[in-house]
Amino acid sequence: MQLDDAVRGRRSIRTYRPQPVPDDLIDSLIDLARHAPSSMNGQPWTFTVVRDAALKRRLADIKNQYCPAEKRAFRADFMIDAAALVVIAVDRAASHDRAVENGVLAAATFMLAAHAHGLGTVYMSAFRDDEPAVADAVRQLLGMPAHVLPISILPLGYPDEVPPAKAIRPLREVVFHERFGQR
Amino acid sequence: MQLDDAVRGRRSIRTYRPQPVPDDLIDSLIDLARHAPSSMNGQPWTFTVVRDAALKRRLADIKNQYCPAEKRAFRADFMIDAAALVVIAVDRAASHDRAVENGVLAAATFMLAAHAHGLGTVYMSAFRDDEPAVADAVRQLLGMPAHVLPISILPLGYPDEVPPAKAIRPLREVVFHERFGQR
Repeated sequence: MQLDDAVRGRRSIRTYRPQPVPDDLIDSLIDLARHAPSSMNGQPWTFTVVRDAALKRRLADIKNQYCPAEKRAFRADFMIDAAALVVIAVDRAASHDRAVENGVLAAATFMLAAHAHGLGTVYMSAFRDDEPAVADAVRQLLGMPAHVLPISILPLGYPDEVPPAKAIRPLREVVFHERFGQR
Repeated sequence: MQLDDAVRGRRSIRTYRPQPVPDDLIDSLIDLARHAPSSMNGQPWTFTVVRDAALKRRLADIKNQYCPAEKRAFRADFMIDAAALVVIAVDRAASHDRAVENGVLAAATFMLAAHAHGLGTVYMSAFRDDEPAVADAVRQLLGMPAHVLPISILPLGYPDEVPPAKAIRPLREVVFHERFGQR
């Protein structure tokens, strides 16, 4: 798929067909994601592919339990229907104080790759700055050591919905020249 | 360009030809970047296109001044040779506590789009968690209000270097199954 089409066509997918996703297809998406840029080329990321139903349930529970009030309309239960949950985590020691950025750069690449290869995903965070219990719960559940920071949880599956295109802010609203606010 | 080729072929580019980059080409990259996912579809980002030589110099000076010790080998002076510096900033009020993630998702998309359209860029941060003076300096220079957080500075230009492919960590080192460390 052309990059431009992948970018424009990608949607956040929260409904999946029961069809399984083969390991080698997931590997090929991770293969692309690990080509993302990283601070000082530290490549500090790992991708934990969670298929076990009980673990998926626990991750959904963690997301529900620590969901901020304003996002409560978006229950995380759909996660258990994903063929896999891909948890992107970053080794603090190799991330040069850019753990979140490095993790998200890989996640963005993974999401575009998933769409380009016929799969659906949606961005979910695996931590909250104001609530360390979120990352701690994920870390404990998946056996991550203390120096590893979980960044994103990307549910993955064959889409069972076709969300309409969202209204995108007009270009002239978001582009400035030389200084903020200057058109 | 195919998405897979864009992901694999992208390099961090720090040397640019003097050739100018037309506004409508930059707009087409921002057009793609604003299709990135954002928390609660807040689309909290703006893209300030800096071409003015004095402003580019000041941004490079800020990067040099606040460069962490371990990164001092990478001087930021090359930024002044970029046709433009695209500064991605995020409105805190519209970012639902995910300012960095939202900004980086747009930046990742922008970088892939730039490569797919023949341009080069490199990821640079516009803030440091441990040094608020960095974001403050960028904000003041570009006239950003206090509720706007500068996230990334993406130099943009026609590449004048062909960096070799970097060694990528083997897939089996970064992929785990069910639990961290489990292959």
